[in-house]
Amino acid sequence: MVIAHNIYPEDRISLREVGLRDGLQMVQTFPDTLGKKKWIEQEYSAGVRHFEVGSFLPALKYPMFADVLEVVAIVSNLPDAHGAALALNKRGTIDALQSGVAEIGCVLSASAEHNLANTRRSQSETLREIDNLCRMRDATDHKPLVSVGLAMSFGCSLSGAVNPKDVLCLVEKCYELGADMVSLADTVGYAGPNQVSDLVAAASKLASGKILGVHLHDTRGMGIANASAALDEGVHMLDGAMGGLGGCPFAPNATGNVVFEDLVFLCESKGFKTGINIEELTKIRDLITEEMPTESLYGAVAKAGIPKGFEVSH
Amino acid sequence: MVIAHNIYPEDRISLREVGLRDGLQMVQTFPDTLGKKKWIEQEYSAGVRHFEVGSFLPALKYPMFADVLEVVAIVSNLPDAHGAALALNKRGTIDALQSGVAEIGCVLSASAEHNLANTRRSQSETLREIDNLCRMRDATDHKPLVSVGLAMSFGCSLSGAVNPKDVLCLVEKCYELGADMVSLADTVGYAGPNQVSDLVAAASKLASGKILGVHLHDTRGMGIANASAALDEGVHMLDGAMGGLGGCPFAPNATGNVVFEDLVFLCESKGFKTGINIEELTKIRDLITEEMPTESLYGAVAKAGIPKGFEVSH
Repeated sequence: MVIAHNIYPEDRISLREVGLRDGLQMVQTFPDTLGKKKWIEQEYSAGVRHFEVGSFLPALKYPMFADVLEVVAIVSNLPDAHGAALALNKRGTIDALQSGVAEIGCVLSASAEHNLANTRRSQSETLREIDNLCRMRDATDHKPLVSVGLAMSFGCSLSGAVNPKDVLCLVEKCYELGADMVSLADTVGYAGPNQVSDLVAAASKLASGKILGVHLHDTRGMGIANASAALDEGVHMLDGAMGGLGGCPFAPNATGNVVFEDLVFLCESKGFKTGINIEELTKIRDLITEEMPTESLYGAVAKAGIPKGFEVSH
Repeated sequence: MVIAHNIYPEDRISLREVGLRDGLQMVQTFPDTLGKKKWIEQEYSAGVRHFEVGSFLPALKYPMFADVLEVVAIVSNLPDAHGAALALNKRGTIDALQSGVAEIGCVLSASAEHNLANTRRSQSETLREIDNLCRMRDATDHKPLVSVGLAMSFGCSLSGAVNPKDVLCLVEKCYELGADMVSLADTVGYAGPNQVSDLVAAASKLASGKILGVHLHDTRGMGIANASAALDEGVHMLDGAMGGLGGCPFAPNATGNVVFEDLVFLCESKGFKTGINIEELTKIRDLITEEMPTESLYGAVAKAGIPKGFEVSH
């Protein structure tokens, strides 16, 4: 069985680049498989080891993920690289389990109203599906990790504030059902750093040997501050997307995921070694601009460069 | 004598908008006096009470500050509003003292190399000028506050790392000479949040009854995270500029000051009441775009709006 802490070690931060999944969710143009291969390989050579690479969804409706099997294989071929892909329905779950992907992600919303609006299922129904996924995973030989993205953990654009007690109850439930990782997602960028501190500290206590992640959007400019708060409370895994790719259907015109390059700089500045070379990483923006010329790329470190005398991670 | 804590109360955060000073430092087009009046009055009506409004510098070389006297008067006429202006040489100091401005700012660089390059003076010479300014201030009837912006407090684009011990030595010296406020400035956006925590915590111990400020640039995307760290360590005053105005001559193409609107959101999200209405505040961006059509405005809260159910400060 795959040991989750081999992939997300407890004694260091794991940074996952989600540009090829969350970053492509809403785009009009996207890289072909060769473009994705270059993207992943350049990031790998800059030191990135964790990739979210796509979703198992109907290719007709989601052409950006039609090649998910090939992209999973690209990551699997790189030593010590770890690929994750989403499975959001039964068909997707079966495909994901057969694909050999190392981690299967699913989504539960911490807001009952949003869970229903987004999936036409109650939270209990979604929890049953997570249970099924974990059981099906247990029956495989390769036993991929199961991770749950807990959407709207810090507030919901439909129902407003979300009670942290309800969020923690769902976190506990997901771990109990067999999820290896729960990732608290600020889907619409509602969180502030104190809120992140409090929830990460409380959720950490429930993790006991499992992985706790945080997935942040920079919708209101708090992304890096929230990441800093999560790091201070011992989060194991943080998501980010190159150039802050990935808009949100619930916040038009807003910036997307927290900028991966800036996130790496934050970690390094705080003494969390990432193994990622920032200068090499920022060069990948050229490739992304070439592949997706209509997308705006955000981020500050790429423009300003690293500070004079700053120690680069190797 | 003006009591500094009437202006920067110890029990709450004071947010100062520096768009009309730091924000205009490098622009080609700038608002005329009427435009500045509208800017200040609209901010005032959104709840802003602290303004940096210009520099006493030769009007020919710095036409954006030619009307500094009138702008000082605009702020002085608003009840409980507090205006600050820079004086960077003897002529400027005399003019500033005569202007009746409530606060006179001067600059000392924490980097010896940068102080020399920027002002052609050693740090000791600049300290003597601060001493003179404080003595001249003491000899006036209205006794304006004196504040020192301690440039490059978190690292220098010329000499790299700056030793925090040297910074703290200068902080202490400035307070001793009679400065009411010292503001640790991350002039080139080198700081990370842990560095800010450490330096603000140490400098706070030296303030004993005086004001400690932090002036942040968002050059590497850490501005809001650094502000959050400073707030956690009890900083009294934070600067920001509307739309993140204010580039830096040492970091071309980089973003400028920390975005004031996002800074207000950060404070409110952390439970620091600002008295500023974010929705009213963000509307001022339209005026700025009209007055300075070639300037890029940054910031996320203005685009995304405040979260559903978020309590707005009054």
